Amino acid sequence: MSLIAVGTMAFDAIETPFGKSGQIVGGSATYLAWSASNFVKPVNQLSVIGYDFPKEELDALEARGVKLDGVQIKQDEKSFFWAGRYHLDMNTRDTLDTQLNVLAGFEPVVPESYQGAEFLMLGNLMPKLQLSVIRQLKTRPRLIVLDTMNFWMDTAMEDLEAVLKEIDVLMINDSEARQLSGQFSLVKAAKIIRKMGPKYLVIKKGEHGALLFHENEVFFAPALPLEEVFDPTGAGDTFAGGFIGHLAATKDISFANMKTAIIKGSALASFCVEKFGATRMKEITKKDIDARVQQFVDLVNFEIVISE
Amino acid sequence: MSLIAVGTMAFDAIETPFGKSGQIVGGSATYLAWSASNFVKPVNQLSVIGYDFPKEELDALEARGVKLDGVQIKQDEKSFFWAGRYHLDMNTRDTLDTQLNVLAGFEPVVPESYQGAEFLMLGNLMPKLQLSVIRQLKTRPRLIVLDTMNFWMDTAMEDLEAVLKEIDVLMINDSEARQLSGQFSLVKAAKIIRKMGPKYLVIKKGEHGALLFHENEVFFAPALPLEEVFDPTGAGDTFAGGFIGHLAATKDISFANMKTAIIKGSALASFCVEKFGATRMKEITKKDIDARVQQFVDLVNFEIVISE
Repeated sequence: MSLIAVGTMAFDAIETPFGKSGQIVGGSATYLAWSASNFVKPVNQLSVIGYDFPKEELDALEARGVKLDGVQIKQDEKSFFWAGRYHLDMNTRDTLDTQLNVLAGFEPVVPESYQGAEFLMLGNLMPKLQLSVIRQLKTRPRLIVLDTMNFWMDTAMEDLEAVLKEIDVLMINDSEARQLSGQFSLVKAAKIIRKMGPKYLVIKKGEHGALLFHENEVFFAPALPLEEVFDPTGAGDTFAGGFIGHLAATKDISFANMKTAIIKGSALASFCVEKFGATRMKEITKKDIDARVQQFVDLVNFEIVISE
Repeated sequence: MSLIAVGTMAFDAIETPFGKSGQIVGGSATYLAWSASNFVKPVNQLSVIGYDFPKEELDALEARGVKLDGVQIKQDEKSFFWAGRYHLDMNTRDTLDTQLNVLAGFEPVVPESYQGAEFLMLGNLMPKLQLSVIRQLKTRPRLIVLDTMNFWMDTAMEDLEAVLKEIDVLMINDSEARQLSGQFSLVKAAKIIRKMGPKYLVIKKGEHGALLFHENEVFFAPALPLEEVFDPTGAGDTFAGGFIGHLAATKDISFANMKTAIIKGSALASFCVEKFGATRMKEITKKDIDARVQQFVDLVNFEIVISE
């Protein structure tokens, strides 16, 4: 049930209509680890940080069952920094500042102790670095999941196409699926994208839920209607962490179990957006998660008898 | 199980990215009748048409079990006409032309034979006319469902507020729910709108499905992911017709049965958008509808065992 989680560990400064976060810890791998570790331990983390990354954050992750052997610490550089401002719809945002810092020269190295992992979660990162991790693994994992974004479609499409050929599950949002496929219809987009490599496609639609496509099957998972989305940062990574965490814990990569994994991921993401950054992810218990999953069951549950 | 369906019977001229319809028959009550009559007969139609409305369309409706006693025919006026053009997203549209014609002086009259109806579907129409129908009924129906649109919020808000106090179920889309409540969060919007009168609120989200709110309960129904939406005109009316048609046929207005009614309405709407106007609604059989409903069941079905 071993899992490698790859991505950034960083600082974010977030503005929403509700306020400003100040500089807080973020990054795709941070959210992945907090989320997946609800289901599976250890999470073998692969990332890079600078001298300024708080030791207490690393200690908290280790206490949680996250292994940091694969996290490089650059003693003379700063951690990756992103600042952004969300619009009123909480779905779109402007990037205010990006400082690559340690990310600029990052070359991921898979520690010997991570070899043989059955599950690989490639969080949002430069596609060529995601590919480098796959190439370093001596045995191909049973399942490789990749999260990416429009920025890489705009700036590194060749690298992205190369890594898409090597993965099993791709996770993107609806506008990214449209951009990647050149199709407005998500059903048509899914067909085209699955020809690019991934056998499974998860399309995240934010407040509108998520779709899972595989061969001729499709599954629709709702998002929980929330009174307030306080900060959507990290929701996609948290969703991905819950998805692969559940699969790694159950060792079952059937379509049926992927549906459950999507519901678990959606439940965790619904907590993530309740407070700034990963705050909420550090507070929730198994009981909280079970209650939230039950809300999803109740939300979509209906009985229909088709009469003759 | 008697049902009254109120709304327009009209001509539309529709432009989509796929082509132009030319002048075809449309109107909220036309779609309501074609949809509801899959489940319940008769549908007691209440509307107004001009001298130009095709007799074969009226004959087709009558053959289908739609009563036309409440359809006024104005021999010296033309039928209501609407022309519109859909944008590429098929979700937004521009009105190109509106000719009120018979609608301008329309005063609905409920025929004696319609009195005692248990179900009343008030399709999209001037709110004061919707209220007039309610006032004419000697016995209040068991369930009054109202469909409306942003145009009436902009131009006849006082009338709309008055009729909202008299109904049970309101159907609007997500942007209309936000406009009516002044809240971006649909959960908050639902609370505010339910205080305006309706005990139940259905928020239609097009390709993103629909939400049903009642007291502390919420139900999320998906939309079927479609390869192509050819023409969305009438999809909301068709949804409403399927919803009230199922409720009227089963005479069960519990929350659980409303969930089923929403799935049935969604299934019918998914046919409506496949061709221009009501073309598809005239073709489909019970077998087609059952198969489509089964697709909805499969789409959202998942099994989760919450372990201790």
